[in-house]
Amino acid sequence: MRITPLTELIDRSDKLQEKLREQDIDAAILVQNSDLFYFTGSIQRGLYYLPAEGEPIYFVFRDQGRARMESGLRHVVPLDRLGNLPGELGRCGLPLPQRAGMEFDVLPVLEAERYKKLLPTTEFVDVSPQVRTVRAVKSSYELEIMKDGALLANRVYEQAKNLLVVGKTDHEVMAELFSFALKEGHQGLIRMRRFNAEMFFGHIFSGADGAVPAHLDAPLGGMGTTPAVGQGSGHKKIAANEPIIVDFIVAYDGYLVDQTRTLSIGPLPDKLQQAYADMLEIQKLMFELARPGVTWSALYRQCHLRACELGYEQHFMGAGSTQVRFIGHGIGIEVDEYPFIAAGFDDQVLLPGMTFAFEPKAIFPGLGAVGVENTWRVAENGVKRLTYANENLWQLPLPSST
Amino acid sequence: MRITPLTELIDRSDKLQEKLREQDIDAAILVQNSDLFYFTGSIQRGLYYLPAEGEPIYFVFRDQGRARMESGLRHVVPLDRLGNLPGELGRCGLPLPQRAGMEFDVLPVLEAERYKKLLPTTEFVDVSPQVRTVRAVKSSYELEIMKDGALLANRVYEQAKNLLVVGKTDHEVMAELFSFALKEGHQGLIRMRRFNAEMFFGHIFSGADGAVPAHLDAPLGGMGTTPAVGQGSGHKKIAANEPIIVDFIVAYDGYLVDQTRTLSIGPLPDKLQQAYADMLEIQKLMFELARPGVTWSALYRQCHLRACELGYEQHFMGAGSTQVRFIGHGIGIEVDEYPFIAAGFDDQVLLPGMTFAFEPKAIFPGLGAVGVENTWRVAENGVKRLTYANENLWQLPLPSST
Repeated sequence: MRITPLTELIDRSDKLQEKLREQDIDAAILVQNSDLFYFTGSIQRGLYYLPAEGEPIYFVFRDQGRARMESGLRHVVPLDRLGNLPGELGRCGLPLPQRAGMEFDVLPVLEAERYKKLLPTTEFVDVSPQVRTVRAVKSSYELEIMKDGALLANRVYEQAKNLLVVGKTDHEVMAELFSFALKEGHQGLIRMRRFNAEMFFGHIFSGADGAVPAHLDAPLGGMGTTPAVGQGSGHKKIAANEPIIVDFIVAYDGYLVDQTRTLSIGPLPDKLQQAYADMLEIQKLMFELARPGVTWSALYRQCHLRACELGYEQHFMGAGSTQVRFIGHGIGIEVDEYPFIAAGFDDQVLLPGMTFAFEPKAIFPGLGAVGVENTWRVAENGVKRLTYANENLWQLPLPSST
Repeated sequence: MRITPLTELIDRSDKLQEKLREQDIDAAILVQNSDLFYFTGSIQRGLYYLPAEGEPIYFVFRDQGRARMESGLRHVVPLDRLGNLPGELGRCGLPLPQRAGMEFDVLPVLEAERYKKLLPTTEFVDVSPQVRTVRAVKSSYELEIMKDGALLANRVYEQAKNLLVVGKTDHEVMAELFSFALKEGHQGLIRMRRFNAEMFFGHIFSGADGAVPAHLDAPLGGMGTTPAVGQGSGHKKIAANEPIIVDFIVAYDGYLVDQTRTLSIGPLPDKLQQAYADMLEIQKLMFELARPGVTWSALYRQCHLRACELGYEQHFMGAGSTQVRFIGHGIGIEVDEYPFIAAGFDDQVLLPGMTFAFEPKAIFPGLGAVGVENTWRVAENGVKRLTYANENLWQLPLPSST
C-alpha cells in the first residue's frame, strides 16, 4: 500500500496550473474519483480546488480524517455542505473564479448545475482535456507501481495455465482467477472514464465465444452470463484445439495494466496459429515505429495497413461490421486514458512517459479470437514493454483420455 | 439467464409515458445502462426513444445484432452515428420533440451538449425523477428475480461461515467468497447510480476495521487495501471474540439484493451482543410501521428515535461525526434506487411493489460494527422480507488450540 508522496502531488498540480494559465482558466474544480486520487492521493467526497496560481485546496465533505491521513496536501479543509464553498474560498484568501474548469466529460448535468448556481458570475468551461493530458504522462513513481502491476499480471497468467481444463466454463475459470488475483493484491475495482463504460476483471473466452461482439468499444465482447451485463465470460465449456484468450486488467495501488495472451489445450488449426504469429508481427511493427513525436493516428494507420496486407481486413480488431477503429488505448488510473492508438488523432503525438496498451487481435466468427496485448511506456527513443509474460502461443497438453 | 418479456417492457414504457404526459414532455431519450436494461431488456450503446404517445424505439450503435436478440421491442433501429437521429425519427414518422427529457442525474455535461446541438429547437429537461419513480415499483417478474438473488445470498452467507478462520484476513475471505458467489451465479458487476459511487462485492470487516469510516455514504466504510479504493475489506487478520460483519450485495440477472449478518468466533462482549439485539428490535419496529402510504422520512424518524432511546445516539449508522442520515435504500437494478429511508422525504410515500434494504447498524470505534440488513418489498398491508438467511448473531466455535 502506497501513500502518494507530496512531491508527486506538487508536480502534478504544477503541470495542470500551466495548462490553466494557457487557457485563461482561473481555477480547476475537480470532483471525479480518479482525478481526486491523482491530484490529492485520497478519494473522498469532496472537491479539489486548484487556482491557476498558488496552492491547491482539498475541500472534503467525507471522510475528513481519512483525507488528512492519506493526502499529503497542505490544505485539507472540511466542508459541511457545498453552499459554504464561496465563503470558505474567501476565508482561504482566494477570490471567486471568473472562469472555472470542471470535468465536463464525466460530470453529470445536475452536478454541474449545482456549481453554476453556487457561483453565478463564474463562467464554467471543460477542463477534462487538460486533466487527461497531464495524467497521460506518467512519473517514475507511477511507472514503478505499474511495474508491480505487471509482476502481478504475470503471476495471474501463470495461474491461468493451471486453471484451464477441458469441460470447465470460461466463467468458472474467470471466478477462480479473479479470486487468485485479489489475494495476490489486485484492488478489485477497475475504473473506466467513459460514460456507461463497465469493466469487471476482463475477459476469458474459449473458442467461438471469443468472436461474439458486445456493446463495449473493444475488439472482444463475449456473451456474458446475462443480458443485464451483456459482455464477458459466459457459460461455454472449454474444449480442446480451440483458442483460449485470456485478456485481463490488473488494478494495483490505483494503477492498471492490461495484458492478453492466447492459449489452447492441444494444437490449434494452422490458420489460427498463423493469425497469432501475424498479430505478433503487427506488435513488432508498432515497436519499430512508436517513439516520441509520432502521431497516435499515424501509428494506428500503419499497423492497420499491415493487418490488411496480411489478409485481416475483415478480421482485425473485430469481424466485419463489428470492427473497432483502434488498436491501443492509454492506461493508468483508468483503462481509457490518453493516448488512443486510433484514427482521428492526427494532431496528437506520443510523449515520453505515456503508457498505453496495444492489442492486435484477429477475430473469426465461429472459431474465436487470437491475439496479444501488452502495456507499454513511451521512452526517449522508442517504447518499452511493461508487461512481460511469455508471448508464445501457449499449448497445454491434451487430457490423457482423448 | 432471463430475457425480459415484451409484456414487461410494455408495462414499463406505459408507466413512463403517463409521467411524461403529466409533465408535458414530448419524449424521453434514455441512454444510461441501467435504464436501457430496464426499458429495452438489452444494454447496448444506443438510446431508447420513448414518445409520450406511441411505441418506443431502441436506436442502436453497437451491437445491433445483440439488441435484436435480447430486446423484445418491436422497433430496434440501427444508428450509424448520433447525427442521423433527427432524420431517423422522421423516417419513423415522429416529429422532433419540443420538450425532451433526459437523465440529468447521470448524463455527463458533454453528452448533454451533443444532444442540445443535435436538436437545437428542443427544450431539454431532467426526466430522472420520473424514471426512478417508475423503476422503484417492481413487477412480480422483477420480484421473482430478486427472490432468486435472495436464495443466492443465503448460500453465500452459509459459505461465509465455512471461510471465517482466526488469522485469515478480511480481504482473503472476501476474495474466496466472491469467487464462490460468481460460480453460483453472481453477475459480478454491481451498479450504483450516484456520481462517483463505487461498489465491489460488499464489505467483510472483522473487529475494529468495521468502525473505520470512508467516503462512501454508508454506515460501514473500511480501510480497504489501498487509498486508491479507500473502502472495503482490508488486510486485518480475523481474531476471536470480535464482531465479524458480512455485508454483501448479490447481483443476479440484473437485480440486486443486499444482506448483512454478524458473526463471531467465540462469544462477543455483552455490550455488542446487546447492540445486535437492539438492531433487530429496530428492524422489528420498521416491520411494524412500514406499509403503503407511510412517508420515507416518517419511517426513518421513528426508527432513528428508537435507536436514540436505546442509547445509540452516537453509534447508530456510524459513530459521532461520521454518522449517515439514512437507515435504508431502495434496491433493484441499482443499489441506490428510490425509496430512501432517510430524512428529507416527507412528501414521498411507500408504495406496493417498492423494494428496499433496511440496515440498522451500531458502530463502536475501536471495537467494530454489529448489525443486520435485509431486502424487503412493500406489500398491500405491510412489508415482506425477500432475504431470509438466519438472523441469529452467529457464533462459530473457537479454534481448539485457544
